[in-house]
Amino acid sequence: MTRLQATYDIESPVGVAQAAAVLAGEQSTGTFIRLAAETDSLRDRAAARVEAVTITGKSDHPALPCRLSADCYEQGTVTISWPVDTFGASLPNILATIAGNLFELAEVSAIRLVSLDVPDSIAAALPGPQFGITGSRRLMGVDTGPMIGTIIKPSVGLSADETAELAKNLALAGIDFIKDDELQGNGPACPLKDRAMAVMGALDAAAQKTGRKVMYAFNITDEITDMWRHLEMLEKLGATCAMVSLNSIGLAGLRAVRDQSPLPVHAHRNGWGLMSRSPHIGVAYPVMQKLWRMAGADHLHVNGLASKFTEPDSVVAEAAVSVQAPVSAGHAQTALPVFSSGQTAWQVGPSMALLGNDDFLFCAGGGIMSHPGGPAAGIASLRQAAEAQKLGLTPHDYARDHPELAAALDSFKGAVNRG
Amino acid sequence: MTRLQATYDIESPVGVAQAAAVLAGEQSTGTFIRLAAETDSLRDRAAARVEAVTITGKSDHPALPCRLSADCYEQGTVTISWPVDTFGASLPNILATIAGNLFELAEVSAIRLVSLDVPDSIAAALPGPQFGITGSRRLMGVDTGPMIGTIIKPSVGLSADETAELAKNLALAGIDFIKDDELQGNGPACPLKDRAMAVMGALDAAAQKTGRKVMYAFNITDEITDMWRHLEMLEKLGATCAMVSLNSIGLAGLRAVRDQSPLPVHAHRNGWGLMSRSPHIGVAYPVMQKLWRMAGADHLHVNGLASKFTEPDSVVAEAAVSVQAPVSAGHAQTALPVFSSGQTAWQVGPSMALLGNDDFLFCAGGGIMSHPGGPAAGIASLRQAAEAQKLGLTPHDYARDHPELAAALDSFKGAVNRG
Repeated sequence: MTRLQATYDIESPVGVAQAAAVLAGEQSTGTFIRLAAETDSLRDRAAARVEAVTITGKSDHPALPCRLSADCYEQGTVTISWPVDTFGASLPNILATIAGNLFELAEVSAIRLVSLDVPDSIAAALPGPQFGITGSRRLMGVDTGPMIGTIIKPSVGLSADETAELAKNLALAGIDFIKDDELQGNGPACPLKDRAMAVMGALDAAAQKTGRKVMYAFNITDEITDMWRHLEMLEKLGATCAMVSLNSIGLAGLRAVRDQSPLPVHAHRNGWGLMSRSPHIGVAYPVMQKLWRMAGADHLHVNGLASKFTEPDSVVAEAAVSVQAPVSAGHAQTALPVFSSGQTAWQVGPSMALLGNDDFLFCAGGGIMSHPGGPAAGIASLRQAAEAQKLGLTPHDYARDHPELAAALDSFKGAVNRG
Repeated sequence: MTRLQATYDIESPVGVAQAAAVLAGEQSTGTFIRLAAETDSLRDRAAARVEAVTITGKSDHPALPCRLSADCYEQGTVTISWPVDTFGASLPNILATIAGNLFELAEVSAIRLVSLDVPDSIAAALPGPQFGITGSRRLMGVDTGPMIGTIIKPSVGLSADETAELAKNLALAGIDFIKDDELQGNGPACPLKDRAMAVMGALDAAAQKTGRKVMYAFNITDEITDMWRHLEMLEKLGATCAMVSLNSIGLAGLRAVRDQSPLPVHAHRNGWGLMSRSPHIGVAYPVMQKLWRMAGADHLHVNGLASKFTEPDSVVAEAAVSVQAPVSAGHAQTALPVFSSGQTAWQVGPSMALLGNDDFLFCAGGGIMSHPGGPAAGIASLRQAAEAQKLGLTPHDYARDHPELAAALDSFKGAVNRG
């Protein structure tokens, strides 16, 4: 494949086939009045092409407010392709091409970008994850089983020393991974450098006892040159992970971090609902995560099964699987899926089952801290749930001689029922 | 005001007041089970506060798919405030706070971020536009009246020399401003450097004849360090404007460009529909443009009246006005509104009227190139339309002794009726 190809679910007041032609025109050589300079040879060379049109249904009203009106709004799926020579391996320009001035076209009354096929030539020219699953396992010292993580809570308001104290206790309780909340950046109330110094001191001390250094994802989200400075500071302190808010720093910002980072990049997708919650407009996660992986994200958030967020479990599953699938036919660039939000021992087995492996980071907050036996028992309950799944046992069966798991299943059964 | 304050239109299965409390908790100190560490003093210091709740209506079904269900979905407006010490003057972290993990909450079945009040302390710490309206007028040599611009079309497919030829003809026809299309970045088919060299050569030659150098916004959208390289190259060539795709480079990317740019930053919002077209989820332009201006955007796109896009004229007007309003009580940081998309002489007067001034950039494509008298007549027709508005005359009255305007009104009347 030598063209970039994107598929959209659309609804249109002018019919799906005509809307596809408008979309291809708008996103390549066209304008609203055909110009003399838009010659046939120019179109052959540079125009987007409608590769496929499928009609799936119709509606008597537009899904979104629409300047054009009609008696019938046709629904369907369209696939458009572009020659790569127009943009090359520039992710920011690829994004402007596949997700630019098309969401506002009056010829569509609904539009979602649902899949993206990337030619090998593009993937080959981009860095991809620097550490991925293997590198992250190595840095955490976790050879098998899901990696168990947690988030510092309260999200904001703790001092550097209070954060470090929490981190130390979690490390001694056996955690593999801890992260800052995405709200905890580098504000005057708890500057990143103070926090990193205190936390790394605490984690190094804990490692003296446990023999293993916990991975802590410090939230470096900030202006570009500040993030580079933060990375340098973190490396000096022996930190092993940097977190960014993807929607805050942008696709170019992510790549800038990747290019200068000696650490795995933990990519947080806060704000994702804005891009994908509506059934009528948006981008599906399997598309966006490809761009983020090619730019260099090592860890990618996918929400969690039965989480506090509104995504149905099927969407969470699709997202998690997509993060482990190759970005192009010949390039894996696999990242580590991160489950989080309202996670407990209940969701470990189903998370393993949907992926068919245990190469994921499982972040629990209350599911660890609120375990009746304390954080160590909370962490143990999550590992036991993974063992049960690996042995093909139900959590309840395995819980008979694993009291931490038994207590977790009992304590958190309310939480999972919200799903 | 010492707190950052945001207002959301929401709909909720748990009631507007309770949803506001969840939102404030999720976006500051809270988690789904209240933790011991979340003390009263920590909350006083760090928690977000619900400042106002107004109930406006209700619905018997959720506007968006929602994990929580109810018999009644209450609708209303909530205002939340945050102490600035948590994030400081870091725009990427401010974005994660006001537009992060809240769009996906199951406690809201619709949510739009509709306004943002910025404390002076934040605005004061940020650069804002470097050139704004005054600097852009100076560089274009346009003391009064709207600045008249156009976009190179076909958007992609022209060679560097073909682009330069077009630019030269437009310059000789009297244009003030030309921009690359947002799809024309730095691909192998037409590398930015080749294009910039050819275009600046052509514009310099034209300036020898006209006595005025046209401002050309070269699309530098790319990875961060590449954009910096592009800026350096453009400065050496005597270029006077750089364009970026905001959603591709991100908020941190925009600031990185601003910090290194010797040129005005022309900010293109392609992809905006994704963030704002749905009535049920999104961010209103008056919010987002404040962040972009504080980060340093000089020119900001606002679509155009009766454009080919689906936004109603009232939304276009609100967007244009917002770009000229102060970002905070004590800081103007005004940017230049850019009207574009299907614009002709018909829309000049109404654009002036809605702003109450002529400090804007008016970009027309077909409205210039397809004028029956050619591009020079097209440009003249736009200036005549502005003169008519300034004199308080109708375009038709003024057209009686201004044949270019008369021809434009006649040729393009179909275009404007789409509005």
